[in-house]
Amino acid sequence: MAAADEDVATAPHTLGELAAERVDHRFKALPPDADGLTVAALAAERRNLFTGGFTTPVLALSAESVAHNLALLETYAERHGLAFAPHGKTSMAPQLFARQLEHGAWGITAAVPHQVRVYRAYGIERIFLANELVDAVALRWLAGELDSDPDFHFICYADSVRGVELMDEALRAAGAVRPVDVVVELGAGEGARTGARTEADCAAVADAVAAAGTLRLVGVAGYEGEVPDASAERVRDWLHRLVRVATDFDKADRFAALAGDDRIVISAGGSAWFDAVADVFAEIPDLTRPVCKLLRSGAYISHDDGHYRHLTPFNRVPEEGALQPAFRLWAQVVSRPSDEQAFVNAGKRDAAYDLDLPQAQVVRSGRDGSVRAATGITVTGLSDQHGWLRTEAGAELEVGDWVGMGLSHPCTSFDKWQLIPLVEADGTVTDYIRTFF
Amino acid sequence: MAAADEDVATAPHTLGELAAERVDHRFKALPPDADGLTVAALAAERRNLFTGGFTTPVLALSAESVAHNLALLETYAERHGLAFAPHGKTSMAPQLFARQLEHGAWGITAAVPHQVRVYRAYGIERIFLANELVDAVALRWLAGELDSDPDFHFICYADSVRGVELMDEALRAAGAVRPVDVVVELGAGEGARTGARTEADCAAVADAVAAAGTLRLVGVAGYEGEVPDASAERVRDWLHRLVRVATDFDKADRFAALAGDDRIVISAGGSAWFDAVADVFAEIPDLTRPVCKLLRSGAYISHDDGHYRHLTPFNRVPEEGALQPAFRLWAQVVSRPSDEQAFVNAGKRDAAYDLDLPQAQVVRSGRDGSVRAATGITVTGLSDQHGWLRTEAGAELEVGDWVGMGLSHPCTSFDKWQLIPLVEADGTVTDYIRTFF
Repeated sequence: MAAADEDVATAPHTLGELAAERVDHRFKALPPDADGLTVAALAAERRNLFTGGFTTPVLALSAESVAHNLALLETYAERHGLAFAPHGKTSMAPQLFARQLEHGAWGITAAVPHQVRVYRAYGIERIFLANELVDAVALRWLAGELDSDPDFHFICYADSVRGVELMDEALRAAGAVRPVDVVVELGAGEGARTGARTEADCAAVADAVAAAGTLRLVGVAGYEGEVPDASAERVRDWLHRLVRVATDFDKADRFAALAGDDRIVISAGGSAWFDAVADVFAEIPDLTRPVCKLLRSGAYISHDDGHYRHLTPFNRVPEEGALQPAFRLWAQVVSRPSDEQAFVNAGKRDAAYDLDLPQAQVVRSGRDGSVRAATGITVTGLSDQHGWLRTEAGAELEVGDWVGMGLSHPCTSFDKWQLIPLVEADGTVTDYIRTFF
Repeated sequence: MAAADEDVATAPHTLGELAAERVDHRFKALPPDADGLTVAALAAERRNLFTGGFTTPVLALSAESVAHNLALLETYAERHGLAFAPHGKTSMAPQLFARQLEHGAWGITAAVPHQVRVYRAYGIERIFLANELVDAVALRWLAGELDSDPDFHFICYADSVRGVELMDEALRAAGAVRPVDVVVELGAGEGARTGARTEADCAAVADAVAAAGTLRLVGVAGYEGEVPDASAERVRDWLHRLVRVATDFDKADRFAALAGDDRIVISAGGSAWFDAVADVFAEIPDLTRPVCKLLRSGAYISHDDGHYRHLTPFNRVPEEGALQPAFRLWAQVVSRPSDEQAFVNAGKRDAAYDLDLPQAQVVRSGRDGSVRAATGITVTGLSDQHGWLRTEAGAELEVGDWVGMGLSHPCTSFDKWQLIPLVEADGTVTDYIRTFF
């Protein structure tokens, strides 16, 4: 492969290429005696996570739980008439994107241009960039992608007139032919994250988009997860505001550039309030064109044992199902210096720690492989490469034991591992999930 | 390359292989129009970080500061008669390891077996694993490395009798021929991290090592950075304890297995107290054999603008020099929703956040590339992919500007980037540093 000529789109990589990658020192925890095997060949060996030559620490992704979660959100979105572009920043794993698309997803959401580049490298055709894009280099690259692939459908945010000017300037300089589709981002409130703060600000951004020959207004969007002091009522209030911006825009004929089968896009939905999104979006009145009600939740793919276990909307609508936490981090006890303390060989490099500490769930005996509940064992801190465990009187734990831990926050769990064993309930590793962070 | 036969050592990878790697979607921030170029070819283009097609966010490592820091610690160790095995977990970058070795380092320190594997993949011949190693799979792999390469010098910790039993068991099962060199780890105090808590515990571990045919006792070690309520006095007290364990072991003839040029190893030294280590180790009395006084500080390679800026021993001994912070994270302002708020496109995926938030230092105008101080601009939080900035009245900042930020904690800065531009003061990128996390 030579340096890409700017006028020639490079062929996308395939999942087959990932399967053909060599297992080596790049991938922590993978069996040293598999060095040089392809990922496909190693997967075909169906090794056991505990006895198949893996080293500690090792992060395991439950095959059954991922399958369950994929099916559950597909059903959920379908039942509520929502299009679904799961946020791919969570896993950054093309193999999981492919399964999300097989499970009915409209496309994949991204947060930054690098993620869009990874998605394009693996042939994703519909990408929703839930962010402003004002980087001239990234816009030049994007224009090349759009102009070389008529099937590439891309949408991004705009939340300021200055941002629109920068986009237009960069796209003109790049000689872009196809316009870039944008949605106006409504901020979730005073002091919230990005997004135009008022309806007047939104209108000003829409005016700027209309004036820019390189852009096309296709809808509105925002992120209800940042509503200040969020409650079901406040989130619903904001979602109603978002819908009103869309209906007002429609009345003002701001979506006039849409044509043919184009739909008006109204998008919201992280992983904490998609029930509210479903409810409010169900009441969107008829507009002059069909509406694409686009949900973007991403954390569901692995779910977790902390933050999202508490926040998931399924706690409020248990009749619609329940997500399953899919990650378990296995680490080995390397030190037991006192009756109250133990240390495992996993730390900040291996486990999410931004929202909650890992949770000791089970212990696998280093002597006979038997598994017991991690009674009386608490993770109290993480160093870079150590986990600090406090053990209560009578807690059975010795050097050599493996501790299985639940994690909190899928996004900062995936991003610490580049090749993650997909493991069935009996410990059989059936595949390896490649991530790109 | 086929799967390695267990009896045949695979040839180590080389830095040349890293230079021949292709730049592609795996590496965030790298110029999209460099896709497919080798790292060496891109480096030869000597692109400018700001105008050479890089996308934001991008982490820059100062070429001059790294060179300065490498030279400073070389001089420091030499002046104080210390051998130096800088902790490689900080950067996990074979190119930087090579430069550390060129700058007189005895070897490279590791925290976990995966790191040892990366070091061996790039031909590192002296490795100090500053941790217990009881993972049977990793021990089997280690035995293979030791038995296939007589020049490979490896030392690791032991801090429990059970740990020694597990090591011996695994090494016997692996048919290990060369014994594994171990140092007894003395814990830094009650409630501290790993390490045997008492002198009696240390002696019991040494007894167990002596009884294990697969191990050889070569010294003592510990980590003064975990001394509870650390002060110069308490750290020195603990270091004196460590030295006494070594001298007592020597009197008890516990290092009898050493032969030829073998030295007794006494090791300590993170990045906050190496002045105390130098002082106390200077007074180590004559033992029956020469002593290898081994310092392990690793954070100096990039230093930082937070945690280690405050803690560096050079603050206490300014006459011995000063480290230079080498990282600057550049992110672009994508949203300016109010006079008090701005958002950049870098978040937890890009910046260290475990000890302190990034610090806004400079702003590069999105209009004309001029650089000004980031007066009145404070980073107040990080989302996964956003940085939250608070701007005081009059702070000049608009969408499109780049914000240059200082970081706190080298270890959690390096580990978020897989290919890091090495940048000269004028913005010229002269090389790209590959990391393996």
